[in-house]
Amino acid sequence: MGGDRAPDEIVAGARRAAEELGVDVVLVGDPGRIGDPGGLEVISSASVIEMHDDPAAAVRTKKDSSLVRAAEAVRDGRAGAMVSAGNTGATMASALLRMGRIKGVARPAIATPIPVPGHTPTIVLDAGANAACSPAWLVQFAQMGSAYARHRFSIARPRVGLLSIGEEPSKGTALVKETHELLAGGAAGPDVSFIGNVEGRDVMSDDVDVVVTDGFTGNVVLKTIEGSLRFAMRAVLTAFDADEAARAAGEVLLPALLPLAADLDPETYGGAMLLGVNGVCIISHGSSSARAIVNAVGVARDALEADLVGRLVASIGSAPVGA
Amino acid sequence: MGGDRAPDEIVAGARRAAEELGVDVVLVGDPGRIGDPGGLEVISSASVIEMHDDPAAAVRTKKDSSLVRAAEAVRDGRAGAMVSAGNTGATMASALLRMGRIKGVARPAIATPIPVPGHTPTIVLDAGANAACSPAWLVQFAQMGSAYARHRFSIARPRVGLLSIGEEPSKGTALVKETHELLAGGAAGPDVSFIGNVEGRDVMSDDVDVVVTDGFTGNVVLKTIEGSLRFAMRAVLTAFDADEAARAAGEVLLPALLPLAADLDPETYGGAMLLGVNGVCIISHGSSSARAIVNAVGVARDALEADLVGRLVASIGSAPVGA
Repeated sequence: MGGDRAPDEIVAGARRAAEELGVDVVLVGDPGRIGDPGGLEVISSASVIEMHDDPAAAVRTKKDSSLVRAAEAVRDGRAGAMVSAGNTGATMASALLRMGRIKGVARPAIATPIPVPGHTPTIVLDAGANAACSPAWLVQFAQMGSAYARHRFSIARPRVGLLSIGEEPSKGTALVKETHELLAGGAAGPDVSFIGNVEGRDVMSDDVDVVVTDGFTGNVVLKTIEGSLRFAMRAVLTAFDADEAARAAGEVLLPALLPLAADLDPETYGGAMLLGVNGVCIISHGSSSARAIVNAVGVARDALEADLVGRLVASIGSAPVGA
Repeated sequence: MGGDRAPDEIVAGARRAAEELGVDVVLVGDPGRIGDPGGLEVISSASVIEMHDDPAAAVRTKKDSSLVRAAEAVRDGRAGAMVSAGNTGATMASALLRMGRIKGVARPAIATPIPVPGHTPTIVLDAGANAACSPAWLVQFAQMGSAYARHRFSIARPRVGLLSIGEEPSKGTALVKETHELLAGGAAGPDVSFIGNVEGRDVMSDDVDVVVTDGFTGNVVLKTIEGSLRFAMRAVLTAFDADEAARAAGEVLLPALLPLAADLDPETYGGAMLLGVNGVCIISHGSSSARAIVNAVGVARDALEADLVGRLVASIGSAPVGA
């Protein structure tokens, strides 16, 4: 029921995912509003947490909402994973309250893969779960992000960077400087390969695999990349439309540019994963189309098959840090 | 003497600026190292603050450095403005210590114009002067950014947005929420037109003219835009090189794409201005070429002709805020 294009695009995506990926998809929502489920099982829910609802309050008061019911389905084993394009804060709160936290995790974080065509993506976390963070949380994000990059993208030894405004350990806020000291001192354990501070320009590059930051900065980075790429694409297309000759040349180049545009499309990765809760929770873009939902279901399936939650449990268990 | 390509590119840029813009340029540096000044006046300095030097300490101990001498030249009226591509922190510290602060300004901020081809640029401040900020400082950044957009880019009523991770006043860090309350309550005075929170994706758009944020986030945004645009450009050029037909088509499109690339180039605006000090101080990119220096000198001249410092004094004087 969540997302700007719900329920139509969401249901269409779920049906396509079942067909194309062969995954058993369960819909959670109002049977009167979701239209034809196309043979998919439906878990009935009575209310919807809207985009503008206060997450914590909504999860408490709307116990029969599709989001809360979806998290319960994972907790109760009726579903292996949940996927939502709805209110991000409420998705996190539902997952956290119903599935619980992985033992030892101070705060769950949203891990978002940033496409780097020709290379494995760069994982940015936290991409928005916690606006304000402590150094110890960031150390855990380094652990979880590292495990995630290793097991989801098969990066043998992910390079973990701390987002700052200069390479020197003396650069940045107090949070960044203290976190740098912890990570450089090995607080994240032997499985985390810390390469030092990185900058905004390194995110879309092959120089780093996991970028650790607080949820405010991470979310700003994500949306800045989205905005500047969209801007650049539009500007290029405008140039292609300059005159008759440009249009003809554009036709020739389109086959080479379309795969690039697809690679750069946030929908390609289908969603971010909430790391640190006791179950798979995939957070899709609010504007998700049916295709984005198909990809998100694929991400959920991959997470289950790779036992990502089990891997995260192990990565935290091996090197717990204080809060 | 400062910048990755100093002194050669800097001196070349200064000479070209004098020629092309008709501006009297004074070089500050080691006469033995700057080569042929081409008839420009040279103020001799003995030492150089390096990129890795601690700014505050270096400004104290290297009193005969080119940066400190340049700031003194402005203070003493030997120059109308200073331009530097060197250590940003030391440039700020020199300007602050030698020129002094505008009365009522708590902290100077770096204002960087982000190109938005087809529109006036979006001013981001603080772009890196203060990693950690207070709400009252951000209110002053709104005042100074607004005056700057009005008088440098002739935007009659600049729309000022506060960078956050959602439009709602409840989104973001404590800093952002408190600043939102102050700005929405009119703390910045009647000359600031506050439009509420904006997000990373709005920076490269025509929806906002001045984006207010702390220096850490602002610097991350700048470098993220730089990195993603460079990435996109390179990816497009690679697509143009896919095969013979693509190369031929690329040739046709180049005339339309080159002006776009130039518009998006950070060097186009030649530098950011340090707002809040008692004089014109232009901070150029560390990698500045001669062309970037020509543009930076142009920015300095425009700032003097528009009496930007006088305008800033007036904008702060009309609505002082507490620290």
